[in-house]
Amino acid sequence: MKEKTFALKGTVFYSKTKDEICVSPDSYLVCEDGLSAGVFPVLPEAYQGIPVRDTGNSLIIPGLTDLHIHAPQYSFRSVGMDMELLEWLDQIAFPEESKFSDLEYARKSYQIFVNDVKKSPTTRLSAFGTLHVEATELLMDLMEETGLKAYIGKVNMDRNGPDTLQEKSVPDAKRDTLNWIADVQDKYTNVKPILTPRFTPSCSDPLMDELGKIQRQYHLPVQSHLSENLSEMAWVKELCPNTAFYGEAYDQFGLFGGEDCPTIMAHCVHCPDEELELIKKRGVYIAHCSQSNTNLASGICPVRRYLDAGVNIGLGSDIAGGFSVSLLRAMSDSIQTSKLYWRLMDHNAKPLTLEEVFYMATIGGGSFFGKVGSFEKGYEFDAVILNDENLPYPQEFTPLQRLERLVYLSDDRNIIGKYVAGTKIF
Amino acid sequence: MKEKTFALKGTVFYSKTKDEICVSPDSYLVCEDGLSAGVFPVLPEAYQGIPVRDTGNSLIIPGLTDLHIHAPQYSFRSVGMDMELLEWLDQIAFPEESKFSDLEYARKSYQIFVNDVKKSPTTRLSAFGTLHVEATELLMDLMEETGLKAYIGKVNMDRNGPDTLQEKSVPDAKRDTLNWIADVQDKYTNVKPILTPRFTPSCSDPLMDELGKIQRQYHLPVQSHLSENLSEMAWVKELCPNTAFYGEAYDQFGLFGGEDCPTIMAHCVHCPDEELELIKKRGVYIAHCSQSNTNLASGICPVRRYLDAGVNIGLGSDIAGGFSVSLLRAMSDSIQTSKLYWRLMDHNAKPLTLEEVFYMATIGGGSFFGKVGSFEKGYEFDAVILNDENLPYPQEFTPLQRLERLVYLSDDRNIIGKYVAGTKIF
Repeated sequence: MKEKTFALKGTVFYSKTKDEICVSPDSYLVCEDGLSAGVFPVLPEAYQGIPVRDTGNSLIIPGLTDLHIHAPQYSFRSVGMDMELLEWLDQIAFPEESKFSDLEYARKSYQIFVNDVKKSPTTRLSAFGTLHVEATELLMDLMEETGLKAYIGKVNMDRNGPDTLQEKSVPDAKRDTLNWIADVQDKYTNVKPILTPRFTPSCSDPLMDELGKIQRQYHLPVQSHLSENLSEMAWVKELCPNTAFYGEAYDQFGLFGGEDCPTIMAHCVHCPDEELELIKKRGVYIAHCSQSNTNLASGICPVRRYLDAGVNIGLGSDIAGGFSVSLLRAMSDSIQTSKLYWRLMDHNAKPLTLEEVFYMATIGGGSFFGKVGSFEKGYEFDAVILNDENLPYPQEFTPLQRLERLVYLSDDRNIIGKYVAGTKIF
Repeated sequence: MKEKTFALKGTVFYSKTKDEICVSPDSYLVCEDGLSAGVFPVLPEAYQGIPVRDTGNSLIIPGLTDLHIHAPQYSFRSVGMDMELLEWLDQIAFPEESKFSDLEYARKSYQIFVNDVKKSPTTRLSAFGTLHVEATELLMDLMEETGLKAYIGKVNMDRNGPDTLQEKSVPDAKRDTLNWIADVQDKYTNVKPILTPRFTPSCSDPLMDELGKIQRQYHLPVQSHLSENLSEMAWVKELCPNTAFYGEAYDQFGLFGGEDCPTIMAHCVHCPDEELELIKKRGVYIAHCSQSNTNLASGICPVRRYLDAGVNIGLGSDIAGGFSVSLLRAMSDSIQTSKLYWRLMDHNAKPLTLEEVFYMATIGGGSFFGKVGSFEKGYEFDAVILNDENLPYPQEFTPLQRLERLVYLSDDRNIIGKYVAGTKIF
């Protein structure tokens, strides 16, 4: 018997397309050597004798992927929520992130973060650290121990920040980044580095140029922010008069997708058509962060437009623009804001359905990590076990209705089991 | 020593105005004979020897008032969320409410409801039952036992519903309503009847006329729905061609506020100016139900406009247009949607602040019940004890920041104590 070969028994859900959730009540979900072998009403002969975890009346869904989260911001989530992006960065986010120069502070904060992410329905994430190499490596160490799979980025930023949170020079930034990559690139099983220019207003052209070179040398993926807030976009236009739209400010340095540069761009609330075209052409992943876009009054991301365009799109909690680490909440938030978009902005933009947000939270974002986010044969075995016994009801519900309830009503008490690439987390 | 005389020790929060939350760290909140005697840094001599509950590092806030909640809808909250109001009523709400003709079903459902409301930060509520007299009385019995104070209404509806959920005739409706009032009006300490015409599309003019007469005879308060959804409003215009705006459809029967007819109107998303004027003139309470307005794609209630106009306004969960029974969630939802309103609809409508939503959830709605929702001397002693120990943080937070975190992050685990009019609930 190979390692990581076992079955979970329960009601199994996964997407094949964004329009349908496959539901298999009371079935066996088989993991073979860390990969899904499929879902079966009866355990096939070939798997007789493998360990079976019977989850009873529980629901089993693919692990959820958080495409955009700021790990150091978790400890100040939901504080100072009465501000817009640029004011919030200056008054809350930057001063708080400065504290991560103190490794003991970083340890306290990151330990709280990893404990909570571990309990959440997230199995994969792409996270920002801070600009501090030591603290970012500490975050990577702690994340490695959780068993979750993560890209984590040391942040680059050399302009327009406070003195306490800014790289001193491009050579300094380059040296720190290369040292960090050397330290971490082969160190972990679960955690990998990702290049992380904070956003264009924080990164000078020479810094971006160096990051582009590093990207091409080390073939690292890239994450940043794009077209989140109107004031931010106006500022980028001033800072980069040579570009036609925000995405070009990354693209001119080779930091905007393409085959050798997998890229996540968070928010994309206000992308012009040319930007969307480039996103599609380059295969850039959009991290849709509904809660943050609301909290920072950025607006509502036109997700329907992006789904129709067929671009890569997943969900992000965007802690601490967002305050909830649960991707199930990100699903319901995304449905909710899409309804307001339909009502207030564009009556042709049909609200998102449960099926669509489930797809985005699973395969949509998961595919950034490879064959992740489904239980079709051959996918990495990321699974989350949901129990709804603390949410009693007097009537009959279909499995899909039970899933819908958990999307709206669940908290960490409902997450009773989790597997990542076949490894049991709890 | 009088009964119901004791003190709570902790960090105490309450509003004097909608622009400021008074914070008293590590203080004594004194209850004297069921009323607040005020907040003191040291227990005054006059109260030496009274029992003191030391809540440690906890936060103590006034009990929250839910101005609009459908009790029978709790058991199907967060199911079938991909619909607008009228479709959702037909396909989900009406068929589910029909089940309350079965008293055993009603008992199961209402028991789940009262258990959860009891654990929530709500101390007062104004609830819809169904049209069924027996089930509504059962709900009132169960609510009485919780110790929470509630107005509960047998629903009136005699048109445009399914055969399974409609009063058969106006005389039947009148008889049922009078029987119900006779049964319940003096039966309870905590629970009182409220007249509840479902909404204009569900109530014929002759039924409304009878309800108006009953109101004047028994001096009952009134609750209903107003200007929630554009299709609903167009329908009301057709049904009541003699009225200039929706509110007149109630007002013409004497069911729209005034000194002897305290009235709650839920939603008020799309009130024209004349309607707002009448709301103000009649002292009608607006129940702002942010979550429901989003879920049913009704729109965003222009709360800033109502605050500026100085009308009575509180918050409602509107279960099951809303799915969360927590008024703390209603507070954060209200801030969030106000930000989108500001961004997308009216840049002059400043987003709601923490102080404003706290005011609406406490005094704003509480004042419908009398001197309720504050700890100023003489207010009924409704208090909720919040503990945030399961939400650790590495830095220092001010008391107000800790309250803000709970508004966004809390669930029932954070509600560790509750008092209503001086009676300990837990």
